[in-house]
Amino acid sequence: MPVDASIPGPTVGVIGGGQLGRMLGEAAAPLGIELHVLDPTPNCPASVVASEHIVADFDDTAAVATLADRVDILTLEIELADPTALAEASAPVEPAPNTLATIQDKLEQMRTLEAAGIPLPRFRAVDDQADLLAARDDLGLPLMLKARTGGYDGRGTLALRDENDLEEALETIEPPAMVEEFVAFERELAVMVAQGADERRCHPVTETIHEAEILRETVVPAGCSRAVADRARAVATDVVAALEGRGIFGVELFETTDGEVLFNEVAPRPHNSGHWTIEGAVTSQFEQHLRAVLGWPLGDTDRRSGAVVTKNLLGDDGPTRPAGLTDIRPILEASDVHLHWYGKDELRPLRKLGHLTAVGDAPDSTRDRVRKCHRAVSFR
Amino acid sequence: MPVDASIPGPTVGVIGGGQLGRMLGEAAAPLGIELHVLDPTPNCPASVVASEHIVADFDDTAAVATLADRVDILTLEIELADPTALAEASAPVEPAPNTLATIQDKLEQMRTLEAAGIPLPRFRAVDDQADLLAARDDLGLPLMLKARTGGYDGRGTLALRDENDLEEALETIEPPAMVEEFVAFERELAVMVAQGADERRCHPVTETIHEAEILRETVVPAGCSRAVADRARAVATDVVAALEGRGIFGVELFETTDGEVLFNEVAPRPHNSGHWTIEGAVTSQFEQHLRAVLGWPLGDTDRRSGAVVTKNLLGDDGPTRPAGLTDIRPILEASDVHLHWYGKDELRPLRKLGHLTAVGDAPDSTRDRVRKCHRAVSFR
Repeated sequence: MPVDASIPGPTVGVIGGGQLGRMLGEAAAPLGIELHVLDPTPNCPASVVASEHIVADFDDTAAVATLADRVDILTLEIELADPTALAEASAPVEPAPNTLATIQDKLEQMRTLEAAGIPLPRFRAVDDQADLLAARDDLGLPLMLKARTGGYDGRGTLALRDENDLEEALETIEPPAMVEEFVAFERELAVMVAQGADERRCHPVTETIHEAEILRETVVPAGCSRAVADRARAVATDVVAALEGRGIFGVELFETTDGEVLFNEVAPRPHNSGHWTIEGAVTSQFEQHLRAVLGWPLGDTDRRSGAVVTKNLLGDDGPTRPAGLTDIRPILEASDVHLHWYGKDELRPLRKLGHLTAVGDAPDSTRDRVRKCHRAVSFR
Repeated sequence: MPVDASIPGPTVGVIGGGQLGRMLGEAAAPLGIELHVLDPTPNCPASVVASEHIVADFDDTAAVATLADRVDILTLEIELADPTALAEASAPVEPAPNTLATIQDKLEQMRTLEAAGIPLPRFRAVDDQADLLAARDDLGLPLMLKARTGGYDGRGTLALRDENDLEEALETIEPPAMVEEFVAFERELAVMVAQGADERRCHPVTETIHEAEILRETVVPAGCSRAVADRARAVATDVVAALEGRGIFGVELFETTDGEVLFNEVAPRPHNSGHWTIEGAVTSQFEQHLRAVLGWPLGDTDRRSGAVVTKNLLGDDGPTRPAGLTDIRPILEASDVHLHWYGKDELRPLRKLGHLTAVGDAPDSTRDRVRKCHRAVSFR
């Protein structure tokens, strides 16, 4: 059931209070929507924009129940939310807890989407060494070994390139696990798809640039052909249609070297690959997520400019220390470059601390501009 | 002295926690800037975005001092701030308290700008009936009688059209007061001018449409000629150059029927006529105010689209009651129309409760779109 679209607006409860919760809060206030978050960190990024913050673990059933009692609807900004606690909560939950459960288990995710006819890399379940060797015989090397649950940003995955890699693989990634064929890709793409009360809308296709499996940069429009972009939107929409519940979903895809589009991963929430929509689209992914979970009409997803490029500010390899930037003048002085600092207390290697968005006419010059800013700032 | 442009960002203390404070807070979070507000209303609009809220009257010297102790810099979003309390505060104040004092006194404002060579309507001080009659002889009727202090949104002003109006005028508007000649204008214009550490930047000229002296609608680009727009920016910049201190200033101007530009009023803070910059400009007036008061580099002021039109949501003539809108679907369904609800508890006649911004290619169609949304929503 949609939530009443009136003002004073509804109160939305969010499991997780990280940067996605913070940017949800920034989108909520103008619409008269109040945000309550649940997060174990007292000073979490979303705490400054949320009107209430319950300090508790994501799987604290009693705390989730308390949050549910105070809000009109529950959603999440982190996959570590507990589907069972959510399913028992007194408030409606969007997207559906069983969708979260499906996505939390990479093998279940692939099986569900395979059943829906989504084009996927070939994959096999791996519960033991025998499974692993059988998969090697069947699919060949290289393979990606993935923990079924708990992995993110490259954690919980291991590339198996030759026979030696197979030997101790299941000590690094403990079963239950799965393997996937290595996809030879031309580029990686992502599409934000919102599933509302009775409609689905896609944002323009994003090109995503990863290094060591962590997103570094996004470029819109993506460098692919129009046909590939259309196909990417179609596949992403089919993926989300196969999943129950309202909300925005970040669908990551491969454009293969032979021009096919294959599914890679899906997140049941706003996604790093959609941060460009804050400045770059008529409706940001954060506002769109709020509209979707509430069952309100979805917003326009059109781009506002010729090109938008984002670059993540990731913690460096130095010691763990208070997070900060020494001098942001290069960003403030640049033309149409926007800082989004997440307000995290601590810098850890590769931790997402913020991002930069540059808006411009053409992808190349816009990318140059944001990279120049990125090079010019340094952590304390 | 500029405040260090590093992250974690500075804490900015704001006198006033109304909608301007709320939108300042929305702009502050992505830049890693923390906001503390001082406002007498516990549930004031800015309270949801501020990390601290001191509940106290604007002229509570002790409370202002407490706020000053907790922040890196003080600014204001309401002219009711007390210049004396600010001048004594332990934190730097931008813009300068004496600028606030000058602006609070309409006669002092006019005298200061007259001395700076700004083109102004003719005006006279009115301390008693004799002054009023002398001014009538000198300037002729009609005249605008204005209280020197405390007026806003049409309060504290009275139009004197004929001799009868003179008789009891000083009972309605008690001296000290002033009169100004009636300006026959083609249209009203406004320019947001930011004064930074060593630079000034203007946003594109806004056309403002008032009814009963309350702003109803803004249109960008303004319907004036390019020459008039250039002149408006030049006059507005000169006005702000004559005032001490950093910050954004809303400068209201008349385009007279013979094509001249005359000063009308100035506000030492973000202004209703600049709300369109949130969606419509590269840097919003709220971010620009933060950059300016901190002495950080000012941002680009370019428009992002062909046209931007805003329309205020003003309380109706019905009884005072809880503020709310019955159904915001017409806004959510419209293309590129954005709701900004201020979160005020109570509807009072003509109170500013929110605004709508439409972004488009041409002023006329964009205005039609926002007006249609405005007509389609109603208060609870």
